[in-house]
Amino acid sequence: MEQLLAIMQLSEQQRTQVKALGINVVTPDDLARKQVNPADISIIYGWHPEVGPSVLNAPHSQLKWIQTFSAGVDYLPLAQIAKQQIVVTNASGIHGPAIAQSILGYIFHFTRGIWTAEQRRPQRFWEQSADDLLVADETSVIIFSTGHIATETARLLHTMNVHVAGVNRTGHPAANFDETYAIDNYQKGLAAADIIINVMPGTPATKGFFNKTFFDQLDHKLLFINVGRGNAVINDALINALDSDHLKYAALDVVDPEPLPETSPLWTNDHILLTQHVSGVVDHLDQRLFPILYDNLKTFVASGEVSRNQVNLSAGY
Amino acid sequence: MEQLLAIMQLSEQQRTQVKALGINVVTPDDLARKQVNPADISIIYGWHPEVGPSVLNAPHSQLKWIQTFSAGVDYLPLAQIAKQQIVVTNASGIHGPAIAQSILGYIFHFTRGIWTAEQRRPQRFWEQSADDLLVADETSVIIFSTGHIATETARLLHTMNVHVAGVNRTGHPAANFDETYAIDNYQKGLAAADIIINVMPGTPATKGFFNKTFFDQLDHKLLFINVGRGNAVINDALINALDSDHLKYAALDVVDPEPLPETSPLWTNDHILLTQHVSGVVDHLDQRLFPILYDNLKTFVASGEVSRNQVNLSAGY
Repeated sequence: MEQLLAIMQLSEQQRTQVKALGINVVTPDDLARKQVNPADISIIYGWHPEVGPSVLNAPHSQLKWIQTFSAGVDYLPLAQIAKQQIVVTNASGIHGPAIAQSILGYIFHFTRGIWTAEQRRPQRFWEQSADDLLVADETSVIIFSTGHIATETARLLHTMNVHVAGVNRTGHPAANFDETYAIDNYQKGLAAADIIINVMPGTPATKGFFNKTFFDQLDHKLLFINVGRGNAVINDALINALDSDHLKYAALDVVDPEPLPETSPLWTNDHILLTQHVSGVVDHLDQRLFPILYDNLKTFVASGEVSRNQVNLSAGY
Repeated sequence: MEQLLAIMQLSEQQRTQVKALGINVVTPDDLARKQVNPADISIIYGWHPEVGPSVLNAPHSQLKWIQTFSAGVDYLPLAQIAKQQIVVTNASGIHGPAIAQSILGYIFHFTRGIWTAEQRRPQRFWEQSADDLLVADETSVIIFSTGHIATETARLLHTMNVHVAGVNRTGHPAANFDETYAIDNYQKGLAAADIIINVMPGTPATKGFFNKTFFDQLDHKLLFINVGRGNAVINDALINALDSDHLKYAALDVVDPEPLPETSPLWTNDHILLTQHVSGVVDHLDQRLFPILYDNLKTFVASGEVSRNQVNLSAGY
């Protein structure tokens, strides 16, 4: 009988549905109390930085598949997983609405007078005015990525008549984008944008992508948003761009490193909005994620294959 | 020849278009230099607290029509205007997208972790968490008003699968609203909502509408937003609601009085987001407003009637 390790908690009803497929459900507690042999686990639902490797590294491990609770999977030991020929499926699609809505929150923070009002509040200075008041239909956005999250963001921006460009590997067209550019030739799209959004997953190719060379290209841009990975941005290069005429504001939901040390200069720059890696957090994640696990379990039981959200382990997403 | 007083500036091209209709354009400067008799002005485009009344009060005034630059017209001397049988047209429709986008900014400030992050920032405390993280599809909104601004707000919320109720005079159905209630019987709609938004124009009926009796009805509501008029809210009643279990957060773009005095307790309540009557500010107002003036001028010249955005002077909107 296949054993599924539920690091991500299953409700009673979900557990019953899984068992009905002929799959046994065990928990990290069962492992800790040595009631289960880690080598016997074939499926992991969720991940944990200690429990996960204890299964992966068990001699003669039977592990075949990991269903994660996140869209990005860069925190997994992907090289080892690939070597052991383990399948990874992610939570792509779950976090799109939350992140897209967070992005709207960051944009309107700077374009609808919230930033100005908060700057003035300590002085209790009230005057009917604000910096950079813009209606969305007069802004233009470029999103690095045309994946699920980027697509949902573009969809929402389109409902407000924003022009949206996207960047992907080859520049192939993508739903909800007015135009798309290849990652090695995005400059024309960037030149026309006021707002730049990074949604790219964390891979070796995206590490340090937003560096001095990138920011030096910018000419009076309004806003840079990072909801991808913190290490995509070189902090000093971003701060220099804000201190010069390259860029006016930044909103960073992810930073490098996390947690952000007290000594980081990101804290003290009042042109940076900092949130705390929560843009993708959804309530009732368990209910939103289970359908992906369950669809995959059904085909896994029947054929040993998964049907949804399989990660390309060499690309990393 | 009809004389139009352009308090709101006309571009050269707009001025040419107006003159081509056989209308003479004069400016407040012309009035100040006594090159024009205020009694000869028949149309005012825009408004100014001194220039406007100088025309309205001129003996034997020929004033027939005022085209304002705002949706609300409560700053005009409406009783006198009605008595002199002057037509008022407003800028309804112009500010809808800006205000709807501002409202999204206020909602996501509290539901996507921005508020929490800003509370923690002075302590440089970074932890991957935030209060009240919600995805829009799990919130329910009630909007007091089903006019242009409310309709655009409901449209945007619908694109994120928010359930939206509206309140109007009779409870008649309105585009983009899932359900509507009459202003004297809205309690069922209110009970189901997490977020309450006031978009009502300033009239004698809305003054003090959000008072102790109103807030006492609320049971753990998430957010109250006011983009209508400041005097619709009794400040002490709102603060009491926030200090008890009735309401968690408020976002106020309009306050009573404006400018908000330094001594107001609204400044010191950190559960209140304050912006400065900028939710409806649009860039290039002159370009967005002129089509309304121009459409009205064409029918005014032909028949003495306006065709768009006439205000009901007894209702006040």
